[in-house]
Amino acid sequence: MALPFRSWYFPEEASHVNSFLARPQVQKKEVEEQWFKTVIAPSAFFCTCVRARKRIRIHQSMSLTQEHLAKIDAYWRAANYLSVGQMYLRDNPLLRRPLERKDLKQVLLGHWGTAPGQNFIYVHLNEIIKRHQLEMIYLSGPGHAGQAMISCAYLEGTYSEVYPDCSQDEAGLKRLCSQFSFPGGVSSHVSPECPGSIHEGGELGYSLSHAFGAAFDNPQLIVACVIGDGEAETGPLATSWHGNKFLNPRTDGVVLPILHLNGYKIANPTLLARIKKDELKKLLEGYGWKPYFVEGHEPEAMHREMAETMEEIALEIKAIKERALRQEQPERPCWPMIVLRSPKGWTGPETVDGLPLEGTFRAHQVPIKVDKGNEDVALRQLETWMKSYRPEELFDEQGVLLPEVAALAPGGNFRMSASPHANGGLLLRELVVPDFRKYGIEVPAPGTVRAADTEVLGDFLRDIITLNQAARNFRIFGPDETLSNRLRSVFEVTNRQWMLPTEENDEFLNSEGRVVEMLSEHMCQGWLEGYLLTGRHGLFNSYEAFIHVVDSMFNQHAKWLKITAELPWRKPIASLNYLLVSHVWQQAHNGFTHQDPGFIDHVVNKKASVVRVYLPPDANCLLSVWDHCQRSKNYVNVVVASKYQALQWLPMEAAAEHCARGIGIWQWASCPMECEPDVVMACCGDAPTLETLAAVSILRHWLPELNIRVVNVVDLMKLQSASTHLHGLPDAAFDALFTVDKPIIFAFHGYPWLIHRLLYRRANHHNLHVHGYQEEGTITTYFDMKVLNELDRFHLVLAVLKRLPQLGEKGKVLAQAMRDKLEKHHRYIRERGVDMPEILEWTWD
Amino acid sequence: MALPFRSWYFPEEASHVNSFLARPQVQKKEVEEQWFKTVIAPSAFFCTCVRARKRIRIHQSMSLTQEHLAKIDAYWRAANYLSVGQMYLRDNPLLRRPLERKDLKQVLLGHWGTAPGQNFIYVHLNEIIKRHQLEMIYLSGPGHAGQAMISCAYLEGTYSEVYPDCSQDEAGLKRLCSQFSFPGGVSSHVSPECPGSIHEGGELGYSLSHAFGAAFDNPQLIVACVIGDGEAETGPLATSWHGNKFLNPRTDGVVLPILHLNGYKIANPTLLARIKKDELKKLLEGYGWKPYFVEGHEPEAMHREMAETMEEIALEIKAIKERALRQEQPERPCWPMIVLRSPKGWTGPETVDGLPLEGTFRAHQVPIKVDKGNEDVALRQLETWMKSYRPEELFDEQGVLLPEVAALAPGGNFRMSASPHANGGLLLRELVVPDFRKYGIEVPAPGTVRAADTEVLGDFLRDIITLNQAARNFRIFGPDETLSNRLRSVFEVTNRQWMLPTEENDEFLNSEGRVVEMLSEHMCQGWLEGYLLTGRHGLFNSYEAFIHVVDSMFNQHAKWLKITAELPWRKPIASLNYLLVSHVWQQAHNGFTHQDPGFIDHVVNKKASVVRVYLPPDANCLLSVWDHCQRSKNYVNVVVASKYQALQWLPMEAAAEHCARGIGIWQWASCPMECEPDVVMACCGDAPTLETLAAVSILRHWLPELNIRVVNVVDLMKLQSASTHLHGLPDAAFDALFTVDKPIIFAFHGYPWLIHRLLYRRANHHNLHVHGYQEEGTITTYFDMKVLNELDRFHLVLAVLKRLPQLGEKGKVLAQAMRDKLEKHHRYIRERGVDMPEILEWTWD
Repeated sequence: MALPFRSWYFPEEASHVNSFLARPQVQKKEVEEQWFKTVIAPSAFFCTCVRARKRIRIHQSMSLTQEHLAKIDAYWRAANYLSVGQMYLRDNPLLRRPLERKDLKQVLLGHWGTAPGQNFIYVHLNEIIKRHQLEMIYLSGPGHAGQAMISCAYLEGTYSEVYPDCSQDEAGLKRLCSQFSFPGGVSSHVSPECPGSIHEGGELGYSLSHAFGAAFDNPQLIVACVIGDGEAETGPLATSWHGNKFLNPRTDGVVLPILHLNGYKIANPTLLARIKKDELKKLLEGYGWKPYFVEGHEPEAMHREMAETMEEIALEIKAIKERALRQEQPERPCWPMIVLRSPKGWTGPETVDGLPLEGTFRAHQVPIKVDKGNEDVALRQLETWMKSYRPEELFDEQGVLLPEVAALAPGGNFRMSASPHANGGLLLRELVVPDFRKYGIEVPAPGTVRAADTEVLGDFLRDIITLNQAARNFRIFGPDETLSNRLRSVFEVTNRQWMLPTEENDEFLNSEGRVVEMLSEHMCQGWLEGYLLTGRHGLFNSYEAFIHVVDSMFNQHAKWLKITAELPWRKPIASLNYLLVSHVWQQAHNGFTHQDPGFIDHVVNKKASVVRVYLPPDANCLLSVWDHCQRSKNYVNVVVASKYQALQWLPMEAAAEHCARGIGIWQWASCPMECEPDVVMACCGDAPTLETLAAVSILRHWLPELNIRVVNVVDLMKLQSASTHLHGLPDAAFDALFTVDKPIIFAFHGYPWLIHRLLYRRANHHNLHVHGYQEEGTITTYFDMKVLNELDRFHLVLAVLKRLPQLGEKGKVLAQAMRDKLEKHHRYIRERGVDMPEILEWTWD
Repeated sequence: MALPFRSWYFPEEASHVNSFLARPQVQKKEVEEQWFKTVIAPSAFFCTCVRARKRIRIHQSMSLTQEHLAKIDAYWRAANYLSVGQMYLRDNPLLRRPLERKDLKQVLLGHWGTAPGQNFIYVHLNEIIKRHQLEMIYLSGPGHAGQAMISCAYLEGTYSEVYPDCSQDEAGLKRLCSQFSFPGGVSSHVSPECPGSIHEGGELGYSLSHAFGAAFDNPQLIVACVIGDGEAETGPLATSWHGNKFLNPRTDGVVLPILHLNGYKIANPTLLARIKKDELKKLLEGYGWKPYFVEGHEPEAMHREMAETMEEIALEIKAIKERALRQEQPERPCWPMIVLRSPKGWTGPETVDGLPLEGTFRAHQVPIKVDKGNEDVALRQLETWMKSYRPEELFDEQGVLLPEVAALAPGGNFRMSASPHANGGLLLRELVVPDFRKYGIEVPAPGTVRAADTEVLGDFLRDIITLNQAARNFRIFGPDETLSNRLRSVFEVTNRQWMLPTEENDEFLNSEGRVVEMLSEHMCQGWLEGYLLTGRHGLFNSYEAFIHVVDSMFNQHAKWLKITAELPWRKPIASLNYLLVSHVWQQAHNGFTHQDPGFIDHVVNKKASVVRVYLPPDANCLLSVWDHCQRSKNYVNVVVASKYQALQWLPMEAAAEHCARGIGIWQWASCPMECEPDVVMACCGDAPTLETLAAVSILRHWLPELNIRVVNVVDLMKLQSASTHLHGLPDAAFDALFTVDKPIIFAFHGYPWLIHRLLYRRANHHNLHVHGYQEEGTITTYFDMKVLNELDRFHLVLAVLKRLPQLGEKGKVLAQAMRDKLEKHHRYIRERGVDMPEILEWTWD
C-alpha cells in the first residue's frame, strides 16, 4: 500500500493517508468504535488511494513541466494585472513611470474580489481547450468584476478585434483601462458589451440555467459555468444544479460547473464556503454531480492542482461522451464539476489600512481607496501591488503581450471570447415554419363554432417541431404545463426530455425530446434564454398567474436585447416568446391563488424597441400572431391565449389580415361604415371580446337603432402613440377608429389603468371607460369572475347606457333588465355552482 | 451480531442486513474489490445496526398497540373520506342513501393527489403532539388539495368553532362539502380561510422559508412543513433548506420538514422521487439535515413505521433542544426531517376508465369524472371508493365523529388548526418605538446640510432593536445588504444571526442576532412573511434593483392580507415593510444591470386597502414615514430611500407635518401663497426633489418674476382619487395644490406613466408633464443618469420654458444656457468621469 505520494496532489488527503499508514496497529475496542475505525474511516482511505493512482497516471501523461506552469502563471498574472489596471487607471498602464494621482480615475468603482479566481479558471480552461481542441464557452456567474472577462478576452486578442481602439499595444491598454467603469465606457459587471459573454452580471442566480440552455442540442460544446458562492445561495441557482437530469450526453453538450468558493459576499461569509467539506460534497453528489476539489492559495501548487484536475475532468468528459455515443438510449452520467476554493481577492494586498484584505469580505470592491488624505501611501501601495504581477515580464516595449505567453491562448474560434456560440445570431438558422393558414379552423360565421385556441396552436407547433427535427434548433420549455395548456399535439412527434428512470405509467418521457419541463419557471426562463442566446428558437409556455416569478429575469433579458441592438457585432437572435395560458379569466375555484394579469404591465415598462404584447381573440388569430412571433428577432413577445373551448370569430384570411393590422373595426359586428357610431365598444383579449360581442348583441336586440362600433385589439402596442412605439397608431388613424367625441367602452384582459396609461395622450381619452381586472376575485365560476370585475356583458351594457343618457326611458328599462340579469345570475350560481345556460350557450347571430 | 430484527422496521435495509449476515464467507479477491466489500458495504450495515437498535428501544417504549394503530387508521380514513366528499358532494355526506347525480356538484374542480398523504402526516403529527404536549403548527407546502387541511381542522373541531355553520353533525358535513370549491365558498387550494394556515397554496416554493420565519424567536414551537416534491423543484424551495444555518436551537423554534414524495406533478414525475434514494439522502444531508425515510403504501405497516419515526424524531428534537439549552453558544444541530414516499392519490381508485390512477399523475385532480355518458358507472365507482373508508365506523347517526376516534386529536390550542401562532394577530404585541423626532437631524435652512438618510434611520432602528430586545419580536431581513444600505448602527446593539463557524475577520456574526441575511431575496421575503404572520414585526431591506425577484411573493402576501381583512376571526398583523435602498438614481457604473424602479408599479396594481408607497425626500421625512410604517397593521409598505450623503430639506417638525399630510406645497421654495403660480413643479423621491429645487433656483435666478410653486409628494397614494384609495386627495384639495390650468412639471422617481395613471382623472391632467425613469441607462455618473432620462435640473428648466412661451426672449436665452450646460456637462464627465463641481456642490440659498 506504499503509494508514491506527492504532497501537492492532495495536501489534505495525503496527510490523512500518511497518518493512517503510519498507525502502528488498530486497537481492539468495543463494537461501535471498532466498526467506526475499521469500517468508516478506511473507506475514505480507499477512495483516496484509487483517486491518487488515477491522478498519478494523469500526472505522468501530462508531463506538466515547471516551465509550462510558469507560463500559465505568467498568463494569469497578466490577466490579474489588467484586472487591477482597469479598476484604477486612466493612463500609465504599463507603469513605465511612477504612478501619479492623475493616472488614476477620479472615481474608483468596481469589484476585485472574484477577478483573480476567475482569471485562474479561465487560463486553466484554455489549457484543456488547447490540449483537447475543445469547443467551449465561458459563463461568469459571479457577475461582478467584469474586468476579469474583459482582460481574458483582451489577452487572447478578441477584444481588440471587436473594439479596434483597444489595440494590442500601450495605447490600446490605456484605452482598455480608461473605458472600464467610466462614463460612456463599459460597466463594472459582465455585460453584453463583453465578447464571449451570454450572461449579464448584476442580479445573480441564472448562470447555470443559462449554461444548460446553451448546452442543449450542442453536442460538441462544453459550457464552463463559474458559479459564485454568493450566487449559489439564490433560489434559482440552488435548483439549477438539477439541470443534469435533462441533459442528454449523446445529443446535448456538456455543462461544467465550477463552484468558486471565494468565501464572502459583500459583507457576510457565504454558506457553501462555511459548511463542512463533507457536507458540501454530499450536497453536490446529491445534486448528481461528481465534485473535484481544488483548494488553496499558493499559486504554484494551485496551478499544478488545477491543471491536473482539469485534465482529469477533460478525460472524464471525453469518456462519458464516447460511452454515450455508443448507446442508443444513453444513461444519465454523473458529470464532473470543480469546486475551487481560493481566497477572495487572491493576490491582492494582504492588508489595507491595517485591516486584513485578501481572503476577507473587504476584498469585494476596490481594495485600496485613494483619498485626498492618503494619496501618497495609497499610490505606492497600489504600485507595489500592480508591480507584484511583474508587468515587465509580460508585455514588451510596445505593450504587446509576449508571444510565448500569448501562445497559451487557443486560436480563432477556439478562444472562448470568440466563440460564435456566445454571439448566437451568427449561428442562427431561420426556423422552418409551415404556412399557419393551413391549421386554421373553419369559421362559417362569427361566434357560432367553438374551439380551444391553444389546442389548434398545438398542431402548428407539432409541425414546426417536425420540420425542424433534423436541425435540432427548436424547443418548448415549461413548468409541467404543456399538456395542461392543451398543446398535446406536440407529443405526437416528440417527447419530454428526461434522463431519470421512467416507470410504466409515465407519458411522453424520453432521453430525447423537444419539450423540457421542470417545476421551476426560473429554470424554464433560464433554459430558453441560454438556448436563444446561442442561436436557436423556442418558447416558454406557462400559466399567466405564475409568470411573475420571472419578472426580474425578463427584465435582464429585455435589457440585454436593448443593449445588443446597439452593438453591431452582436447579431440578432430569435425572440423570446411567452405563451401565457390559463389566464386570469380562466381561473375558477382557485380563489385568489392563481390570479393577476400584471405581467403585461411589467413588460410594457421596458423599451418599446424590445417588447411586444399580443392578445389574440380566437384560434385563427393566435395562429397568425404566433407565426409572426416565432419568426421575429430580438424581441420579447408576450402572447396571452385561451385554452378552453370558446367561440371563434374570424375565418383564417380575415384573422391574418386583422392580426397584420393589429387593431381594427369588426365590421360584421358594427354599424355600417358610413354611419357615425353612438358608442365605440373596444375589446382586447379573448374573454373581453366574447363579453363585448355578447353585450353588443343585447344592445342590438333592445336598441336596434343604436349605432355601435366594435374595435378589436390584438397588438396592444397599437394603442401607444406612433412616437412612443414603432407599432403605435398615428393619431389620425387612432381617431378614425375611436372617434374624437364618442364614448369608448373598453373591455380589457388586464388591469384597466394600463389602457389609460397607453391612451392618455389620445384625443378621446376623456371619453374612455375601461373595464378590466380589478383584483376582485374569489371562489367562483368563470363568468362570475367577470361579473365581480364588471367585465361581463351585463355590466358592459350598463356602462354603455350610463354614457348615453339620450336613450331616455328605453335605456332605463334595459338597465333594469341588466340588473335583474345580474341578480338572477348571482342566485343561480350560488345555488347550482355553474353559469346560467344562457351564458354558457350564447352564440352570435 | 444477530439482532432481533423485524421486517417492518426497515424493509429495505433489513433485507440488506439479513443477506449480509447470511453470506457464508467473504471471498478474497483483488485489492479494490476487497476494499469495496469489506470496507464500503459493511459501513452501511453498521449504521443500519445502530439505527435498528435505537428503533427497538423506541418500539418497546411506545407500546404501540394494534388497537391504537387501528384508531389512527380510523382517523386517517375519516380525513380521507371528508377530502373526497368535499371534492364531490353537495348532499348525502354520509352516504346514507345511494349516491345520485344530484348529490354531486355540477362542476367538479379540485385536487386529490396530495390529500391522503397530507392527512396521513397530520394524524401522525397529532400523535406526537399529544404524547409530548408539543406546540406545533402545520404548513401545507403542496398547496393543492386544500380540503385535506380543512378535513383535519374539521375533525379536531376548530373548523366548526370558526365557522359554526359547518357544525359537527350531518348538516355541518353537508355544508362543509358543498362550500368547497364552490361559488361563494372556499377555494380548492389552501387559503387564508382555513384555520391553522399561514401559507397559501397556488404558487409554489415558499413553505419552507415561511416555516423558518415562523420558527424564529418561538423556542417552544415546532413548525411542521410539508414540502411537495413538485414544490421542491422550485428555486425558492431549493435554497430554503439552507435555513437551518440560521436557526438557533436555544432561542428559536424547530422546523420539521416533511418532504412528501408523491411521485408526480400534474403530468410529469418529480425529480426527487426519481433520483436514487442514496442520491436524495446525500442531497438532504448535504443541506445539513438528518433524513428519516418512511416509504410504502400498505396502510398498517406505514402507520407503524410513521408513528415510530415520528416518535424517534420527537425524542431527537427534545434531545437537541435540551442540549442547546445547556449551551451558552449553541452549535448548529443536524435537525431531523422526514421523507415520506407514498403513492399519489393513495387509497384512491386503482384504475379509472381502464387506466391506472392511484400512484400516477392521473391522481392529481378529480379522479373520477362524472359525465353524462358514464354517470351510473362513475357514481357507483365513487360510492365504492368513498365507502372503502367505512364512514359508518367513523361517524354516528347524527354525523358526529365517534368519540374514541375524536379523542386522538389534541385539545384546545394544541390543535394545529387552532394554534394562535397561525393567527398571528392574536399574539401580536405592539412594537415599542421610541420617539422618531429625537433622531432627526438639524436642518438650520433647507438644502444646506448633507446627510445619508438611511444612516440616520439606522440609529432609529438600532433603538427599536434595543427596546424590543427582551420581547424578541423584531427582526431585519436582507440579502447581505444591511451594511451596504448604511444601517450600520444596528450592529452597535445586535449581530447577524449565523450558526455556521466564524473566522477571525468576520464581522457581526453571532448565534443570536436581530439581523438575518442570506443572498436570496426569496428567502428574506419568506422569512419576513412567516415572522409577521405569526405575530411579530420586521422589515426587509434590499436594493431597489433586485426587489423584482420577489414580485410574485409580494402578490401572494398582498392577496393574503386582502382576504384576511374580510375574515373577522383573523386578527390584524404587522405590516410588511420594504426599505428599498440603492435605488435607480444611485447606480453608477453598473450599467444596465442594477436598474428599474418598476416594483412600485407592480405594488400599486394591488388593492388600495393593502398597499402604501412612500418616497421620503430626506432623512427627517424617512424617520417620520418609517415610524408610521413600523406601527401600522395589515399593509404592505414600500419605502424608497437614499443612502448617500445628500442635501436635507426639512427640520424635524416640518418633516413630521409634511409626512402626516403626505403631500404639500413647500412654501419656502415657492411663490407667496397669495400669488397665482405660473407653473407647478412637483417632485416625488429624493433625486427628483433635489433636481426640482435646483431647477427652481436656476429659474429664480434668471426669471425672478416667475411664480413657481413646489409641491412635494411623500405618499404616492395621495395622488389617486379619494374614491380609489383611502389616502387619495379629494379633487378640490388636489386642484388647490396643482391648480386646474397651470402647467405641472412633475419630477418622479419611477416610470413617468405611473404618475399619469394615478392622475388621469384629475382636472389638470392635460397640463401634466412627467419626467421620470425611461429605461435610459448606461455606464455613467449619478447626475448623468438623470440627464439621460431628462430628470436633471437643466431638462426640468427646459420643460418649464417649453410650457411658458409667454416668457419670450428671456425664455429663449435661458433655454440656450441650459442646453449649453448640458453640453458642457457631457464633455466634462466624459473627460473626467465625475460630475461638475457646480452639480456636486450645489446648495439651496
